Amino acid sequence: MTPFIGELVGTALLIVLGDGVVANVILSKTKGNNGGLISITIGWSMAVFVGVYASAAASGAHLNPAVTIALAYAGKFNWQDVPAYLLAQMLGAMLGAAIMWLAYKQHFDETADADTKLGVFCTSPAKRDLLHNFLTELIGTFVFMLAILFITKSSNSLGALDALPVALLVLAIGLSLGGPTGYAINPARDLGPRIMHALLPIKQKRDSDWGYSWVPVLGPIAGAVLAAIVYQVVN
Amino acid sequence: MTPFIGELVGTALLIVLGDGVVANVILSKTKGNNGGLISITIGWSMAVFVGVYASAAASGAHLNPAVTIALAYAGKFNWQDVPAYLLAQMLGAMLGAAIMWLAYKQHFDETADADTKLGVFCTSPAKRDLLHNFLTELIGTFVFMLAILFITKSSNSLGALDALPVALLVLAIGLSLGGPTGYAINPARDLGPRIMHALLPIKQKRDSDWGYSWVPVLGPIAGAVLAAIVYQVVN
Amino acid sequence: MTPFIGELVGTALLIVLGDGVVANVILSKTKGNNGGLISITIGWSMAVFVGVYASAAASGAHLNPAVTIALAYAGKFNWQDVPAYLLAQMLGAMLGAAIMWLAYKQHFDETADADTKLGVFCTSPAKRDLLHNFLTELIGTFVFMLAILFITKSSNSLGALDALPVALLVLAIGLSLGGPTGYAINPARDLGPRIMHALLPIKQKRDSDWGYSWVPVLGPIAGAVLAAIVYQVVN
Amino acid sequence: MTPFIGELVGTALLIVLGDGVVANVILSKTKGNNGGLISITIGWSMAVFVGVYASAAASGAHLNPAVTIALAYAGKFNWQDVPAYLLAQMLGAMLGAAIMWLAYKQHFDETADADTKLGVFCTSPAKRDLLHNFLTELIGTFVFMLAILFITKSSNSLGALDALPVALLVLAIGLSLGGPTGYAINPARDLGPRIMHALLPIKQKRDSDWGYSWVPVLGPIAGAVLAAIVYQVVN
Repeated sequence: MTPFIGELVGTALLIVLGDGVVANVILSKTKGNNGGLISITIGWSMAVFVGVYASAAASGAHLNPAVTIALAYAGKFNWQDVPAYLLAQMLGAMLGAAIMWLAYKQHFDETADADTKLGVFCTSPAKRDLLHNFLTELIGTFVFMLAILFITKSSNSLGALDALPVALLVLAIGLSLGGPTGYAINPARDLGPRIMHALLPIKQKRDSDWGYSWVPVLGPIAGAVLAAIVYQVVN
Repeated sequence: MTPFIGELVGTALLIVLGDGVVANVILSKTKGNNGGLISITIGWSMAVFVGVYASAAASGAHLNPAVTIALAYAGKFNWQDVPAYLLAQMLGAMLGAAIMWLAYKQHFDETADADTKLGVFCTSPAKRDLLHNFLTELIGTFVFMLAILFITKSSNSLGALDALPVALLVLAIGLSLGGPTGYAINPARDLGPRIMHALLPIKQKRDSDWGYSWVPVLGPIAGAVLAAIVYQVVN
Repeated sequence: MTPFIGELVGTALLIVLGDGVVANVILSKTKGNNGGLISITIGWSMAVFVGVYASAAASGAHLNPAVTIALAYAGKFNWQDVPAYLLAQMLGAMLGAAIMWLAYKQHFDETADADTKLGVFCTSPAKRDLLHNFLTELIGTFVFMLAILFITKSSNSLGALDALPVALLVLAIGLSLGGPTGYAINPARDLGPRIMHALLPIKQKRDSDWGYSWVPVLGPIAGAVLAAIVYQVVN
Repeated sequence: MTPFIGELVGTALLIVLGDGVVANVILSKTKGNNGGLISITIGWSMAVFVGVYASAAASGAHLNPAVTIALAYAGKFNWQDVPAYLLAQMLGAMLGAAIMWLAYKQHFDETADADTKLGVFCTSPAKRDLLHNFLTELIGTFVFMLAILFITKSSNSLGALDALPVALLVLAIGLSLGGPTGYAINPARDLGPRIMHALLPIKQKRDSDWGYSWVPVLGPIAGAVLAAIVYQVVN
């Protein structure tokens, strides 16, 4: 399996499972309706576990443009490989969102509220204040990336044995820093499904909130690069 | 221990614990009544953990006809061993369901609603639409089996060290793709207990919903075979 | 550390943490009041994890008379060491219950219902029917012990690396087979704290329900011995 | 990375994630509002996991003055290194609290109740009775430190492989002994954020409850030293 396919498959698994748990908890008349914070955060954590496990050998399991860019910035990943990784991550995220939608199509149809439908695909802030939302995403991804750098140490990638530590890290971020903006901490996780929300024939959908879309893209990239800088200073 | 006994014991443990958590959460006047999505999904995940751990050495812990058939389809398991595995899985699932019923007999008697009693044994869709339910089971098992193939790599079976990754994978599937149909993702898990529901002297029970019974059998098999095909293409 | 001290310390840790989570969830005005099934079952699971981890090197972490007796019955543990193990387990359980009571004394005082206070120390059935309650405890411990025998294989004890599998097994039993009787599955876990309930100066307490006390002693022993027999037959 | 930086970074990660989950669950209009006991205890547990993982190689991951002092008392850590460790832990805790506040600033502004705002930073007892609260913190930290000594055995520090056992131990303590006082079990975890509560320009805050502040400092130190003494006696 090529690194490109690895990133694509891994990110698709991440999003079908990650967006899937949100669908299960917030769409109408599902078995998991109203499952709460612990279900959503454990669900996303396990989505990371499965995605990393599946792609570690092929691509090093970045699954996140902010991780790829920060590793390149830190000199641990080749800049010329960055575009292919980002493309694979975006395509994987879009594919994963489409499969999730297919599995939950009946429940999208059952759900009246258009904000809820959008919320299955991508994040939105609890309190809209773009600069502060940007700061929160920056902080969440800073903590995430700093810990990733400690986990991977001198390596430029994640192995299968890192799947559980990274999944538990994402559980920590979700429970602890997900309160204000829903912890995108990954541009592909947010932008890929947002694009699919715009493209898919979802009944009675709203616009895809493009005004917010730059926050969960630039916030995570800024936070991850800052973490790479801090890591190099303290090491 | 022979592979036959291994599959039978492992699947019995899977079902006594898996159906058991559903009984605890949905039957009347149990200690765990109303325990919610997180209890059910963690309970099933731990049921997988125990079942795989116990049977890994003897049989490779398939515990699921869809897994056995997909591995045979992919050339990783001998077709002539398939019938014995399927029989052991079905007998184990039926035995597990019977033991679960014995442990919860008082609470089956306490529970008025006949749909609830059936729901302890086997799955039912949140929204009945057999073709779409089939698709959902196909997608859930496709994701499950694709990840299993990454976990087992070149092997044709699961070892004791795979018990935790596979359990976490089933936790992911349950939280994320279990919303529409309750994630059978395993023909023996659904059909074996459904047969026991028909055979056991449960008070004031309904029919065993045979009209739905083919969905959680064929959907998982289709999804698992599709995963084997995709895995071979991308590898 | 001698095996006697190992069993005593391990069982004390098991009970202070296990009974502790029940106190946190059911006593009045605690921080964890009304924490539900998932908190209680994860709390007991982590109590097992800590108890096994601490005592594995010294005593092999039985922490449970039913385990000790079943291992002796199976010829994997010396009958002449059984009395000392059982005594250490009972003393440890009593010590753990006393420390738990000390930590939660304010909340025992706050709690009006005497059944609730007893319920922190020891188990009671959801539906009282002693023969059926016995059967449920037998089934729960049978599944528990059968899995323990697979985990320990040819060994007569648990090592530190078994702490997590055994903790997850207890999580499975609690979620799945704890519904009718609260899963004692361990005579010392139930009888030791029940004796302390009788001895400690708890305000406005009820009797210690001695009429039920034999069920969570004999049921687990019968279930564990049955598991040892079955294990020897299938292996 | 020096031990000083290791302790500082590790404790900062511990507090930003630990106080973060409390903010998410108790502040107004967050995504995780009302997430309950299980979210808070798993959140703190994962905060420990991340903090220990990140600092194990550099400093041995004490992250807790009670641990440092108890190890020094037991002759396993050099008394002359204690002041630097304690300073790093306090600075890290203050830094972590500041970052948490920045991420949740909108929700601090949204929250009317001043006790709730203080409760994000530091612990308070469910029932105020300083001597008994002291006893509860002593017991909780005694159990915590006793188990830590079994986990670390002859070592004076925690390695990355100890991150999960220690995180699960803290999950056990939180679920089981956190009911009366909210399990500070770490002087830096409580005093550092309490100082930040006093220093930060939080809108409509109350005083920082200095009258209680000695309890979660001296209780944990007493409990940890007692554990070191008991450990040496039983070994």
